[in-house]
Amino acid sequence: MDAAEFRRRGKEMVDLIADYLENIEQRPVYPDVEPGYLRSLIPEEAPEEPETYEDVVKDIERVIMPGVTHWHSPYFYAYFPTANSFPAMLADMLSGAIGCIGFSWAASPACTELETVMMDWLGKMLKLPEDFIAGTHGQGGGVIQGTASEATLVALLAARSRAVRMILASDPQRPETDITSKLVAYSSDQAHCSVERAGMIAGVRMKKIPTEQSDKYAVQGETLRRMIQEDKAAGLIPFYVRTEHIHPLLQYTLYVSVLLVLHICIFVSGNAEKIWMHIDAAYAGSSFICPEFRPLLNGIEFADSFNFNPHKWLLVNFDCSTMWVRKRSDLIGAFKMDPLYLKHDHQESGRYFDITFSCYSQSIRFRSLKMWFVFRMYGLKGLQDYIRKHVELAKEFESLVRADQRFEISADVVLGLVCFRLKGSNEVNETLLKRINNGRKIHLVPCQLSGQFVLRFAVCARTTESRHIREAWRLITQLAEEVMQELPN
Amino acid sequence: MDAAEFRRRGKEMVDLIADYLENIEQRPVYPDVEPGYLRSLIPEEAPEEPETYEDVVKDIERVIMPGVTHWHSPYFYAYFPTANSFPAMLADMLSGAIGCIGFSWAASPACTELETVMMDWLGKMLKLPEDFIAGTHGQGGGVIQGTASEATLVALLAARSRAVRMILASDPQRPETDITSKLVAYSSDQAHCSVERAGMIAGVRMKKIPTEQSDKYAVQGETLRRMIQEDKAAGLIPFYVRTEHIHPLLQYTLYVSVLLVLHICIFVSGNAEKIWMHIDAAYAGSSFICPEFRPLLNGIEFADSFNFNPHKWLLVNFDCSTMWVRKRSDLIGAFKMDPLYLKHDHQESGRYFDITFSCYSQSIRFRSLKMWFVFRMYGLKGLQDYIRKHVELAKEFESLVRADQRFEISADVVLGLVCFRLKGSNEVNETLLKRINNGRKIHLVPCQLSGQFVLRFAVCARTTESRHIREAWRLITQLAEEVMQELPN
Repeated sequence: MDAAEFRRRGKEMVDLIADYLENIEQRPVYPDVEPGYLRSLIPEEAPEEPETYEDVVKDIERVIMPGVTHWHSPYFYAYFPTANSFPAMLADMLSGAIGCIGFSWAASPACTELETVMMDWLGKMLKLPEDFIAGTHGQGGGVIQGTASEATLVALLAARSRAVRMILASDPQRPETDITSKLVAYSSDQAHCSVERAGMIAGVRMKKIPTEQSDKYAVQGETLRRMIQEDKAAGLIPFYVRTEHIHPLLQYTLYVSVLLVLHICIFVSGNAEKIWMHIDAAYAGSSFICPEFRPLLNGIEFADSFNFNPHKWLLVNFDCSTMWVRKRSDLIGAFKMDPLYLKHDHQESGRYFDITFSCYSQSIRFRSLKMWFVFRMYGLKGLQDYIRKHVELAKEFESLVRADQRFEISADVVLGLVCFRLKGSNEVNETLLKRINNGRKIHLVPCQLSGQFVLRFAVCARTTESRHIREAWRLITQLAEEVMQELPN
Repeated sequence: MDAAEFRRRGKEMVDLIADYLENIEQRPVYPDVEPGYLRSLIPEEAPEEPETYEDVVKDIERVIMPGVTHWHSPYFYAYFPTANSFPAMLADMLSGAIGCIGFSWAASPACTELETVMMDWLGKMLKLPEDFIAGTHGQGGGVIQGTASEATLVALLAARSRAVRMILASDPQRPETDITSKLVAYSSDQAHCSVERAGMIAGVRMKKIPTEQSDKYAVQGETLRRMIQEDKAAGLIPFYVRTEHIHPLLQYTLYVSVLLVLHICIFVSGNAEKIWMHIDAAYAGSSFICPEFRPLLNGIEFADSFNFNPHKWLLVNFDCSTMWVRKRSDLIGAFKMDPLYLKHDHQESGRYFDITFSCYSQSIRFRSLKMWFVFRMYGLKGLQDYIRKHVELAKEFESLVRADQRFEISADVVLGLVCFRLKGSNEVNETLLKRINNGRKIHLVPCQLSGQFVLRFAVCARTTESRHIREAWRLITQLAEEVMQELPN
């Protein structure tokens, strides 16, 4: 395919995309296929000779679409939102064409520099403490990671490296393996599974801080303090606490985070251990651009690193997980390598955040273009409006649930997610969810709260409107009625 | 921006992209900017109110392009190729629109399944041993990772986990930290810096196997055998060998790999330790689709995992680093977590390779669409032609160098990269390279071979033709003349 054909096919693809997104709500949101469905639809080997574009494009409907879960359907209420906006898609097209690999400043200065500046723009929207802004002379700053899981790992590695450096400074003879074998990281027992995974990868103990329903699953500073004291008494080295503003899949922890951050901050600021505090607000972070939600981030003053995902709720297509650190040198210390082939004249300028030294992958796409397009074409006000609309829609769904005696709300609704259930057994709720998803008209996933099987209703798609919420509720109540009628009396 | 405006702007963007790529060789390939150039060109904060698309798009030439290193210019000969093809860009547009997050089969079955099948297609193109093909009943298979660095880390983690399991099986009381503190991994002293980084992250000893110029920097099986014996005698646990088919930035190691693989295979297959062997052919791997280059992969029969980057040389835009394992369960063992919110009815079907359990990020884009479009629209033959053309161009450049008495070839030319230098001091070669890059007409980076400063000439862009090679050589010889005339007699 040459440029001339690309001009034609590219424009057809633009129309195909617009058609797809404009008509998406007519598709079943959740696919009706069995595992292995796709293999039988296509050949077992790649073709020897080229096929035409027509051949390929007609297979999109035949092969791909039947197996797609349509995340951008206004009837998709599962998991959490993932961003999808036209400005971000346009920027991604440009990024693909420029196709530079940003593994150092010299590999494409615009790629490194726009990222540093966009992270400052976003940090200012969030009113992050000055320390996290790179500016022209700051020691902190932000980089884009692929996912919050990566950010969690990167923060843990930076913390591990800092802890080892600090201990070696006072005890240079101590073997490094002895230090790392005694390090302990802490995280709420409500945390996302990627936290445990990060501990596994970094080869450090990751302890779960027990939480109680009566505390709304908030980690209690006192619990953490006691764990840390006991661990120190046993010869271990506490070095990292990860807290979250909102569990990506479980709204309930929103409150956890608020209390947790304040408690831990007081605790951490009052001790000399220099325990690294990483705050993960993967989903909730986007809402902090609204003054009314910004108080949820109080405590950030005491954090060493902070992360959230604009690719969830800020209209910047995946992947774009933004991470700030108070000291760039802490990240660089965790990763730095200096081979000749990556050296260039401006190596140590300090005027940007060299990406090679701040994330695991080393090679990255030109991802900041998406942020630039989205921030400019929506403006801060447009983005705030977008967040507020989703919160309103969640409140609308909540009030529908509350108005129905058969249902209960399982956790306070603060942002865009409603946890609810039929008053009754877990079985009846499981049956209800199965009916909902088998209907394929709307899609939800469950969570567990204190042993209860709970339905999660997350406002996800950019195009979700009040009418979709009401239609979803109509379907849910209709199916609930069926399920309840079938119950033995 | 609504769908109607996207139809218009998207088509403009398609033309912008086609214009950019059709006229790219008229741009200086390497930018003439100082660090920090970009910050002063744009506001310090995001706008409050939305801007128009025209405002944004006109800043592409004003703000971005002056700072871009044009990797797809036919005058770009630096680093290594990175893929850029129209079919891949079209597929990426579609991937952005579908915008699903493939973290489990249920999150979008087509995303998981197409990836498994495309990895089979590609594995068959490479004639990988049957064990690496998933098929409908295989135990092995492939997944897409973001970069070769990630694949190296993932393989190391899987190896670590397998080694720990094996030792615990015979000695259940042994503390895990004791085992990991004694694990040793091995890698050539010519290896990419990401290998050392992977060892650092996983918290295991990574030992460099010394190589000699007289062996063409090939790791000698005997050297490795001795190291392993000594380490075992010292109570350590050898568990992982990483070998590479070609250093991504240094052609020279191509021969390393060939010898290395054969030596190590004989060694590994003859011992009972079950040392994990990971082969990384980040750049060279694409060439193995040609029968004449496939012998370079001999030895793969003994490997546990294999990785290369179609996003380098196989026309699939970044990111697409393909990794196969002989046993999917080894990867799953290294990562598996099972929270309720990721459970679905088809959890253990074994008919696909669940992505959540096989890479670090957990969330991924629909990257296999790019492979599908590229493989079908080029066909195997078209891809082979593409590889062969680049190899031919490298040979053409080599013969130009060899015909000039002032220059020498520094390493055998096998694929698309030529290492060469002026006969003379390192200083004169450094000066030459600086002049070349300051001219901004062509772009090269250096490497070091046995203390010699060497220029690398990599055939990179899809559109590079013989005339570009000859023009590059004309420029190089012209600048060499200047540099040599300035030398003190």
